[in-house]
Amino acid sequence: MKHTVTIDGAFHLEGGGTLHDVRVEVRTWGRRRANAMLICHALTGTADADEWWSGLFGSGRLFDPATSHIVSMNVLGGCAGTTGPTSIDPVTGEPHGGAFPEVTIRDMVDLQALVLDRLGVDHLDLVIGGSMGGMQVLEWLIRHPERVTTGVPIGVGATQSAWAVGWSHAQRHAIESDPRFRGGDYPLERPPADGLATARMMAMLSYRSPESFGARFGRTRIDGEFAMQSYLDHHGEALVDRFDANSYLRLIGAMDSHDVGRGRGPREAILRHIGHDVLVVGISSDVLYPVGETRELAAAIRGARFAVLDSPHGHDAFLIDTEQLGTIVQRHLAGEREVEIDPALGASWA
Amino acid sequence: MKHTVTIDGAFHLEGGGTLHDVRVEVRTWGRRRANAMLICHALTGTADADEWWSGLFGSGRLFDPATSHIVSMNVLGGCAGTTGPTSIDPVTGEPHGGAFPEVTIRDMVDLQALVLDRLGVDHLDLVIGGSMGGMQVLEWLIRHPERVTTGVPIGVGATQSAWAVGWSHAQRHAIESDPRFRGGDYPLERPPADGLATARMMAMLSYRSPESFGARFGRTRIDGEFAMQSYLDHHGEALVDRFDANSYLRLIGAMDSHDVGRGRGPREAILRHIGHDVLVVGISSDVLYPVGETRELAAAIRGARFAVLDSPHGHDAFLIDTEQLGTIVQRHLAGEREVEIDPALGASWA
Repeated sequence: MKHTVTIDGAFHLEGGGTLHDVRVEVRTWGRRRANAMLICHALTGTADADEWWSGLFGSGRLFDPATSHIVSMNVLGGCAGTTGPTSIDPVTGEPHGGAFPEVTIRDMVDLQALVLDRLGVDHLDLVIGGSMGGMQVLEWLIRHPERVTTGVPIGVGATQSAWAVGWSHAQRHAIESDPRFRGGDYPLERPPADGLATARMMAMLSYRSPESFGARFGRTRIDGEFAMQSYLDHHGEALVDRFDANSYLRLIGAMDSHDVGRGRGPREAILRHIGHDVLVVGISSDVLYPVGETRELAAAIRGARFAVLDSPHGHDAFLIDTEQLGTIVQRHLAGEREVEIDPALGASWA
Repeated sequence: MKHTVTIDGAFHLEGGGTLHDVRVEVRTWGRRRANAMLICHALTGTADADEWWSGLFGSGRLFDPATSHIVSMNVLGGCAGTTGPTSIDPVTGEPHGGAFPEVTIRDMVDLQALVLDRLGVDHLDLVIGGSMGGMQVLEWLIRHPERVTTGVPIGVGATQSAWAVGWSHAQRHAIESDPRFRGGDYPLERPPADGLATARMMAMLSYRSPESFGARFGRTRIDGEFAMQSYLDHHGEALVDRFDANSYLRLIGAMDSHDVGRGRGPREAILRHIGHDVLVVGISSDVLYPVGETRELAAAIRGARFAVLDSPHGHDAFLIDTEQLGTIVQRHLAGEREVEIDPALGASWA
């Protein structure tokens, strides 16, 4: 089912901004019942989790509407139904555009909590997400611990690393230096398409791996051009058609802000304090969030289990190898302690 | 010593273009003697190898002017003295600019061979280079086998991989979509600075590693901005000051063309036919040319040895960890079969 939930009044952001009458695009599957699950999407995702995580939906699968009540929302600052730079500012009657305030992962999560209040969902048996979605999972565990039974962050560490901050920054430079960007004040029908396409090409490289592109494209040429080049051209253009540049910038800014310790104290203490039965999933070939980062995250959370999604597909493996991922998470939910544990972590994490 | 060598008349390129009266910027160190070494530079390098490889120069080191005659040249298509897009086309009296023809690694190497003829250097005891320099080493071994004793390609495979082609392409898109690029026909004093800076930021990410940036920058902020961001901004601006965008495009095009099998037959047969005492050096943390690619290259060359430069610094380790690199190469030249062989290759490569 599709809902649009409006949170009336002022919504105050961690960075100091204020939004009014925030609207949130929500999808739910299955009837309201005890077993509730929240799916958090990644950078360019949407509330339509049954589309981008279709392999996990269905009878007997992780997200089974016959046995669970499943919720997904487009994030704050996004451009797929929830209030973001392209939506109309009720104060001015114009789109926010470049004036849209900075948002953080914590803002996204707090808004989700308000929406769940409105939907009457008090408790979540599972909060799960990969990449930016995984950052939301961690903040759910820290900010609203009493509302969550178990969390599964995938392909993410305790902070956005310098490496990942660097990738964001090169993408930001590509967008902001496009003359059509105009400091964020562009008409929606004339976006900074070239800069956004360059950013997407870079992002697609970071989401996959040398192995996956080697196996898929090798040195194949089509009409004189490498198939690898056509692939990137396609993905650059496709994102321009479906995503707003200001929204992209706010969301990578939120990812860059990701740091479980920010304003709270030492990261180690914050993570150790998480008392949930957490499963951290790393991805063997992840270029952007290397598996070592996820292993460190798991090691720092008291009682966390760690599993490796063994895949050549890089960071995007959580969207591609869904059968393996579903098995790992379902075993975790079934209480099997012997999920596929990385041998480097040893038996103490099993 | 600094020389400018002109190759009079027409120089025909593999891609069909023709250049006239090609000039080559050459540096030499030490007197002419039997022991001659050619250093091939990487994408944004120059003939001034004693600057960018300073750690390898000096008494008792790999490049010792007291015992060797060392030669380095700026590559064809470059912008540091050798004929390239910024130099004057003798036919029109104007800079070539965007009309400069496509060049390949083979063109670079054939031009170097002509220059060595002019310098009276018939034989090279060593040809060495990393990245684009390593591609030149491989083409030296294949095109001019009788003139070379040993070659040391570093951080490079038998072809430019789909992954590396993708990195080139995203950088190309950044440059070519900058409105100042004007199809390559920009005045030199008004270059596509934003696009070239974006390309350089991307390249710097690909040249380093998550570990190196994590250790160096972590989540340190300076005046509210991440130190990682300032670093990329600096490197973007610095390249704009010293490098021409058309030249950058021709050189990444040459790297994309790199394929030892192109027009020759199966790669495996070409590599097996190399009869030299080759040392292939892989870099443990290389993101752009993963160590597996270099291992495969070594395995395919009959009699090649393989060593791993063990470093957290990524692809750029060949420019950073010069003490370790020098030791590896000097042991190779001394005929020690027990250079630091990757254990995965086993004794057969020792």
